[in-house]
Amino acid sequence: MPAPLPVVRTVAELRAQVAAWRSSGERIGLVPTMGALHEGHLSLVELARGQAARVIASVFVNPTQFGPNEDFDAYPRGEARDAALLAGAGCDLLYAPTADEMYPQGFATTINISGVSEPLDGAARPGHFAGVATVVTKLLTQTAPDVAVFGEKDYQQLLVIRRLARDLDLPVEIVGAPTARAPDGLALSSRNAYLSAAAREVAPALHAALRDAVARLAEGKTVEQVELTGRAALERAGFGPIDYFEVRNAETLRRFEGARPDGPVRLLAAARLGRTRLIDNIAG
Amino acid sequence: MPAPLPVVRTVAELRAQVAAWRSSGERIGLVPTMGALHEGHLSLVELARGQAARVIASVFVNPTQFGPNEDFDAYPRGEARDAALLAGAGCDLLYAPTADEMYPQGFATTINISGVSEPLDGAARPGHFAGVATVVTKLLTQTAPDVAVFGEKDYQQLLVIRRLARDLDLPVEIVGAPTARAPDGLALSSRNAYLSAAAREVAPALHAALRDAVARLAEGKTVEQVELTGRAALERAGFGPIDYFEVRNAETLRRFEGARPDGPVRLLAAARLGRTRLIDNIAG
Repeated sequence: MPAPLPVVRTVAELRAQVAAWRSSGERIGLVPTMGALHEGHLSLVELARGQAARVIASVFVNPTQFGPNEDFDAYPRGEARDAALLAGAGCDLLYAPTADEMYPQGFATTINISGVSEPLDGAARPGHFAGVATVVTKLLTQTAPDVAVFGEKDYQQLLVIRRLARDLDLPVEIVGAPTARAPDGLALSSRNAYLSAAAREVAPALHAALRDAVARLAEGKTVEQVELTGRAALERAGFGPIDYFEVRNAETLRRFEGARPDGPVRLLAAARLGRTRLIDNIAG
Repeated sequence: MPAPLPVVRTVAELRAQVAAWRSSGERIGLVPTMGALHEGHLSLVELARGQAARVIASVFVNPTQFGPNEDFDAYPRGEARDAALLAGAGCDLLYAPTADEMYPQGFATTINISGVSEPLDGAARPGHFAGVATVVTKLLTQTAPDVAVFGEKDYQQLLVIRRLARDLDLPVEIVGAPTARAPDGLALSSRNAYLSAAAREVAPALHAALRDAVARLAEGKTVEQVELTGRAALERAGFGPIDYFEVRNAETLRRFEGARPDGPVRLLAAARLGRTRLIDNIAG
């Protein structure tokens, strides 16, 4: 049994602990999460441990990145379980602020990122990335880590965060971690807990369709053909509606102008399965 | 003759100097400016010197806080003169980044503050405070000072900056400095250089009208009466158009709901005099 994980709930306590570690010359890693932890999160903690002497995980279900009809209230929460998993993964501190600590009375600031935050989930979830950008900036300025680790599972989010860290001159290295998957290919996600047994059987078709699309691109199919085939595969499997299934520039998330990609490729998809919205992406 | 002021133009050089000072345990003060320095700016440097062992002044004419029809191109510039004035005031370092250093290719981030940034200059100059908030956040994250000093001359800007520093958890103390004035009451401003000799004679009427309004409020006049009288006085003096002449809550910049103020008062005014836009404000 690992020792219980220390928990802090205020910026002042967080900074006191970070200052103590820093005065001993220790590098600090941060793994921001919304809790409901799974093996994917724990792989981020492990990655951070390889880059920093001390690893802090934050758990904060950020209300401002949920739309009015999204699952903020239903989002799974369980701090005791999260803390035990983090302790087992070698995390040193859990930062679990309240909503009042993050957004005190009078809070009035929003950070918008143009470009990478606009298409895909930016179009499907208005305001989502402004909420993400604002809370992640706060977590980074509150913690002042040397390195912060985010999963490629939320690939567009990772690009948004890289952009804001660069644009706001935050002295932190942003590290992307490969998506952790179930043996059948389904990307691990806290929202997988919403899936019925039948939907869980269907869910791996999302990753399969993305892999198939990569193969078709390699065969020389056009972007349009590949996207149409991918959407059709998802519909056949039982997904719907499909928010997007797209071949995009991996750095800018722009569409390619020609029929075939002429730059680094990322394939990204988002679709409903029953009442659950699943997203996934892979390199092209 | 003071020694020439060291100048740095990149974030990396700035951080190297700040890190060296910090490793000697010295507190750092920052005075952000747009150059074209006058006694008002130098009073900010002096105030910073009272609170920090090392004082950095930044000079950056920030394009994103000027509207398309404003005076970005015409804004007065003169680095050699600014550097000499700063050296004489005991400043330790001039940070004068290029626009490319502040906004490199691909820059995509905007910080918006709701509430205090919306009325008055926020209404008269769309996008102005988003430009201010974004560049000041960058200057604060680039420099990481212990204290940053801003003039009350730009009172609404000061409130916007206090808000963003608090909301984004920037570990810096924001200090407001009293407005420096000419003997006839005119607030010192780089834009006063635009005034013709005749307009310079008229300009002190702005401060006089604000002082008169404070006296009228003290006599028990209503907010509406005071504002009407103030606008009329400016028009009589030769100002026009008048963007605003208003009695506002000093903390929120909201209007008072009743006929007379029931909280801390700030009187703020902005008006054209010839082709020059002047602003001023005083405590009520």
